[in-house]
Amino acid sequence: MSSTAPVSETEAQCIALEDLSAFSISVLSAAGANLETASAATRAMLHGSRLGIDSHGIRLLPHYAKAIRGGRVNGRPRLDFNYRAGVVATLNAGDAHGALAAYEAMKEAISIARFNGMGAVAIQRGSHFGPAGAYAVEAARAGMIGVTFCNSDAFVRLHGGAERFHGTNPIAVAAPSGSDDPWLLDMATSSIPYNRIRLFESLGQPLPRSVASLADGEDTLDAAQAVMLAPLGGEFGFKGAGLAGLVEIFSAVLTGMKLSSEILPMEGEDMSTPRYMGAFVMAIDPAAFLDPAEFKNGMRRYLHSLRNSPTAAGETVLAPGDREWAEAARRDREGIPIDPKTELAFRDLAEAYGVPFPEGTGTP
Amino acid sequence: MSSTAPVSETEAQCIALEDLSAFSISVLSAAGANLETASAATRAMLHGSRLGIDSHGIRLLPHYAKAIRGGRVNGRPRLDFNYRAGVVATLNAGDAHGALAAYEAMKEAISIARFNGMGAVAIQRGSHFGPAGAYAVEAARAGMIGVTFCNSDAFVRLHGGAERFHGTNPIAVAAPSGSDDPWLLDMATSSIPYNRIRLFESLGQPLPRSVASLADGEDTLDAAQAVMLAPLGGEFGFKGAGLAGLVEIFSAVLTGMKLSSEILPMEGEDMSTPRYMGAFVMAIDPAAFLDPAEFKNGMRRYLHSLRNSPTAAGETVLAPGDREWAEAARRDREGIPIDPKTELAFRDLAEAYGVPFPEGTGTP
Repeated sequence: MSSTAPVSETEAQCIALEDLSAFSISVLSAAGANLETASAATRAMLHGSRLGIDSHGIRLLPHYAKAIRGGRVNGRPRLDFNYRAGVVATLNAGDAHGALAAYEAMKEAISIARFNGMGAVAIQRGSHFGPAGAYAVEAARAGMIGVTFCNSDAFVRLHGGAERFHGTNPIAVAAPSGSDDPWLLDMATSSIPYNRIRLFESLGQPLPRSVASLADGEDTLDAAQAVMLAPLGGEFGFKGAGLAGLVEIFSAVLTGMKLSSEILPMEGEDMSTPRYMGAFVMAIDPAAFLDPAEFKNGMRRYLHSLRNSPTAAGETVLAPGDREWAEAARRDREGIPIDPKTELAFRDLAEAYGVPFPEGTGTP
Repeated sequence: MSSTAPVSETEAQCIALEDLSAFSISVLSAAGANLETASAATRAMLHGSRLGIDSHGIRLLPHYAKAIRGGRVNGRPRLDFNYRAGVVATLNAGDAHGALAAYEAMKEAISIARFNGMGAVAIQRGSHFGPAGAYAVEAARAGMIGVTFCNSDAFVRLHGGAERFHGTNPIAVAAPSGSDDPWLLDMATSSIPYNRIRLFESLGQPLPRSVASLADGEDTLDAAQAVMLAPLGGEFGFKGAGLAGLVEIFSAVLTGMKLSSEILPMEGEDMSTPRYMGAFVMAIDPAAFLDPAEFKNGMRRYLHSLRNSPTAAGETVLAPGDREWAEAARRDREGIPIDPKTELAFRDLAEAYGVPFPEGTGTP
């Protein structure tokens, strides 16, 4: 979905997916994670890396290893599903890695939906889960529409606001497309992620309009001066802020977990205190509404119409996910680009945990 | 949610809600609607008018009377609920007025959710339903989170696109707020509605940036030249277009109804052919996830924090719905402003259908 090239593409060497996967699982295991945790976290990061969402890709590995080592994330959690009523459940994830909690929650939601048309699980005591789309895609692979919400530590001001109030609070929805790769919307409710500001800063380039603000809430084009993100929509940022609020209600209020403004910073000093993050996943089975073939045909017809829609000069039109799945196909062939900073961090991990560094294939 | 003053406020006379309600029900009944249809359509329009969403308010009455009279909308429909699986249903609304279909569908979704935690109804053979928030609010009044999606005839280009592809495809979500008026997000997935362009044109004012485009898809500030809307987000319009697609999938694909690009224009010549519009409503019961008191306390805490968040100079911060509920309280006291053009149309209706025009109280 990003309109700019992946951040880490410059001066990167490429490492094969399976080598990165093995490295990540070994590191996380050595940091104290059980196999379920290490596998889930790795799978989620590689979803991000495959699709070109490098901000939520394998570069998170050193952070996750530190969180598990420090105790913020419980590498050997007990996951308790709690069924109060009907087709919904809560999952007390016991400070599990967010990816483990979210994959297990979505698996449960899919099971419930298989027999009931819909299922939802509200996750309690989770943690950073990486790319929200990873879990929505699970539902789509099972023939269902998947929805994932998660709030996160505050970076985004309100419309008219002058403090970090909401997290980038992503909305991810995936739907079977009638072909191999799902329709996949995975979007922050800010225009850009916070690390993109730091990228503009290091490149010395002006920010796009209306994406980031000074401490007094005024928007700025100067990345070095920007301290918070603006909600999606610019002048109509009340819509982006409203969507962030929607995510906040499902992720924090419905779970009894922390509001974005209360969540310990992701990159903080304290790596031992759990963050009490909530999240919400839902699966909806189209077969409960109409013949599955009719749904698939409808998706194909819609996407055909979309992809053949006239474009403005020099532009293309894409369905959500089109760019990402094409990137995934390329990276499956060529490997995952690892930027120099991440490579250094990985070499440190390799040494610290006694795990061999997966040598790549040089710059792509 | 609108950042500008209500359109119809200028040179308006005010008419009391109950007088407008009686007038509307009489006109629609005389046009051929049964009481259920006339009441539902009136109630939905007055939701819009009370909350200051005049584009989806009582000004739609002449249009609805014409649609019922012409046969596009069946004023005496048979509504068939069809239960394929579990907690979801489809409603074949038999070309009913969209408001009747949506109120009945949400009522059913709430009933299902009461016993199962969640319920959803996909509406088939509906029609224009007015303000999407009206139905989401029903769930919130019942203590639940309500969600409403509806696609509509195409006005909004894709990101990079050069034709009207999606409708303004609203997303409405309401949640109990712990006080009288629900948290209420009711937003088009374009930045502005199409009739706001015509307003800028008649005022001779430049459009905001990145909200509307020429026939070749290039954005324009000239309202007279604008022929389509841009998706929410400006440079990041892939997010607005993705959200419109989400609405399209739930409203059109999941129901087997028409895509936005296939729906007969709302204001077209043909007022006798049904429009085969779909919509989707869902109710989610917080009590299925946690103690209802805990949910209410959480909402109060979140909203208190939001409303007391620091603001940029000269700005305010509002929760979704705050502006609208304040406007509703004012209009309950002062009446609904009826602009001169709508007043003329109402006087024509009064004459055509032999229903006395509800005289107002002069300009507010």
